[in-house]
Amino acid sequence: MAESSSDLPPTNGENGVKPPVSYSVPMNGGNGTYSYSKNSYYQGLSSNTAKEKMDMEIFDKLDVKNLIMTVNSNTIRIADLGCATGPNTYTTMESAIRSIKQKHQTQCPNSPSNLEFQVFFNDQVMNDFNTLFVSLPEDRDYFAAGVPGSFYGRLFPESCLHFVHSSFALHWLSKLPEELRDESSPAWNKGRIHYTSAPDEVVKAYGRQFAQDIEVFLDARAKEIVSGGMMVMTMSGIAKHIPYSYIPNGMLYDFMASVLSDLANEGMIKESQVDSFNLPYYAATPEEMKEIVDKNGCFIIDSLELTNPASWLQGQLVDFPSLMKHIRASMEGHFSKHFGPKIMDDFFQRLLILHEHNSELINSRCQEKVQLFVVLRRI
Amino acid sequence: MAESSSDLPPTNGENGVKPPVSYSVPMNGGNGTYSYSKNSYYQGLSSNTAKEKMDMEIFDKLDVKNLIMTVNSNTIRIADLGCATGPNTYTTMESAIRSIKQKHQTQCPNSPSNLEFQVFFNDQVMNDFNTLFVSLPEDRDYFAAGVPGSFYGRLFPESCLHFVHSSFALHWLSKLPEELRDESSPAWNKGRIHYTSAPDEVVKAYGRQFAQDIEVFLDARAKEIVSGGMMVMTMSGIAKHIPYSYIPNGMLYDFMASVLSDLANEGMIKESQVDSFNLPYYAATPEEMKEIVDKNGCFIIDSLELTNPASWLQGQLVDFPSLMKHIRASMEGHFSKHFGPKIMDDFFQRLLILHEHNSELINSRCQEKVQLFVVLRRI
Repeated sequence: MAESSSDLPPTNGENGVKPPVSYSVPMNGGNGTYSYSKNSYYQGLSSNTAKEKMDMEIFDKLDVKNLIMTVNSNTIRIADLGCATGPNTYTTMESAIRSIKQKHQTQCPNSPSNLEFQVFFNDQVMNDFNTLFVSLPEDRDYFAAGVPGSFYGRLFPESCLHFVHSSFALHWLSKLPEELRDESSPAWNKGRIHYTSAPDEVVKAYGRQFAQDIEVFLDARAKEIVSGGMMVMTMSGIAKHIPYSYIPNGMLYDFMASVLSDLANEGMIKESQVDSFNLPYYAATPEEMKEIVDKNGCFIIDSLELTNPASWLQGQLVDFPSLMKHIRASMEGHFSKHFGPKIMDDFFQRLLILHEHNSELINSRCQEKVQLFVVLRRI
Repeated sequence: MAESSSDLPPTNGENGVKPPVSYSVPMNGGNGTYSYSKNSYYQGLSSNTAKEKMDMEIFDKLDVKNLIMTVNSNTIRIADLGCATGPNTYTTMESAIRSIKQKHQTQCPNSPSNLEFQVFFNDQVMNDFNTLFVSLPEDRDYFAAGVPGSFYGRLFPESCLHFVHSSFALHWLSKLPEELRDESSPAWNKGRIHYTSAPDEVVKAYGRQFAQDIEVFLDARAKEIVSGGMMVMTMSGIAKHIPYSYIPNGMLYDFMASVLSDLANEGMIKESQVDSFNLPYYAATPEEMKEIVDKNGCFIIDSLELTNPASWLQGQLVDFPSLMKHIRASMEGHFSKHFGPKIMDDFFQRLLILHEHNSELINSRCQEKVQLFVVLRRI
């Protein structure tokens, strides 16, 4: 269930008029009750598992000695793509730096440890970088920089990055497939807000957009990452034959549609508003991801597997009120932008009630492997 | 007179307790009536002159061909130190990039123009980077990054910058000399808020702090700038034998002290508050600057001269209400932090009246050379 709260800001909002492609919805900024910086604890727990795997991958497969020799510099440049406002990004970056240093020590035991690190924290332009910068750890041993802009496009000069990380960000599409709102299309997504429980045409439209986005993403990173550089990505994923409605994340989207439908029936919002709203969120199968990476051709796949993001639950039951705050911190922007801020309290309160009514079912599906862990190395 | 409005955020505030060294006061953020982004037009005009000189220096003395060959990369890295929230920083960076490209074309007429630029926008952690990022020109031909932190210290990895710019920032001290608030010191600055019209001991205490800050600044930049790289700095300056009270900027500080004294007499603030308040602002002579650069030993001086920042006035009279908004945008933070936000409207209103009463005198001193233009090249 942690996965559904592990969402980074998407890139497209809808409010009756078609938004520009680059339009973005950030997570809740600042430090308030529903801010992402105060409500990203679950993401932190989920990424702990991924962090350990990342550390192992760096130690096993990143040739730090060779990276340094190739560029004739002691500077290692790292980027966290879709970093949000912290604090998870700081601990992940520190962990990556520690692992790279250890690998360097192992490879070059007799050379002085004079590596310098520059970390680029990237997120969309509307991200709250002020909060991110103010919270940077004071005792950090790296040079920090913020990079505003969508990672579905170039962000850095050629061959300048040695290690790239992206956590819970790449399941957000750059934009919504047009046909979802086209009444004449078989992919018209009336009454739903996602491809969960939707006809196959809707699922396919989402899948095509995902493939297109990841292709653009890999093209850009292939230019920016030096030969031998590594990229570790964690995102929503799902096994090939499981319907999305089976897992807690899918249930969440079905519940959201149901609450919105109730609100429309009660006249608090319009039915047409619900019909025109869709979440640009896609969970790929390992097979889909592999196909896109192979097509790009610039990366070796070091690892590509589905993992359980909620293994830290260890049999405990989900704390739904806390979970709902996490969901709100990362997703409120979409809903308030489209439906207006007034119904937000009501919306999330009803969602919580639906979750509590279905707690047994949700808890029973929390150990599914719905996190895609991907490690690529630049050829 | 433009110079006094050309202030970037200082680094030290006082409010009865001694602030930490790194404490910073940013300019007014956002886009409101007294925001820096709306009130930095004069700085723009002043920096236009400096920009033309910068472009000439780049074209004459920056060996772009050699820079590229040395690092074996087509990426040119530029930093603007103390960039504030825009828009001036964008036009200056674009101008620098244009000049570097022109120089490259001239030096390598037959090579393809495949240079890539990465621009690092630096200012203190409390700077409003959100406003800066949102306003970045969409059609920019460089990769943008924000770097939070004081430039009186390291900000970048070793040997990574090719061109550094800093406009109206280096006259702000990293902190205030302790002795200004020490009643037993001959440098106790009772009744004043600056070294203007102060005893020699006060001027010297400021001068020592400036020298120490610029030494730290040059040490850091010497590590960060590649051999052959260039640094262009514009800051407040003054000729050796002119008293600071003679120029409009000095008059401003004397007026500020006078208004604060009136407010204290009227019981709106305490006298002790005025005594404990000082502006960490220093205008160096060319001789002082040269001595510090020579002592550092890592840079060749390509240019070091006093210029007139208000040449764009061309005989017109100063528009005092507009000027006062500029001063407020860049300096309000200091005063409201120390004296509280309540008296700010009154304070700046009285300041405006004092300026208007003395308009003839101020206008007659507006053509003094009070801008120090410095170009250094890394050995």
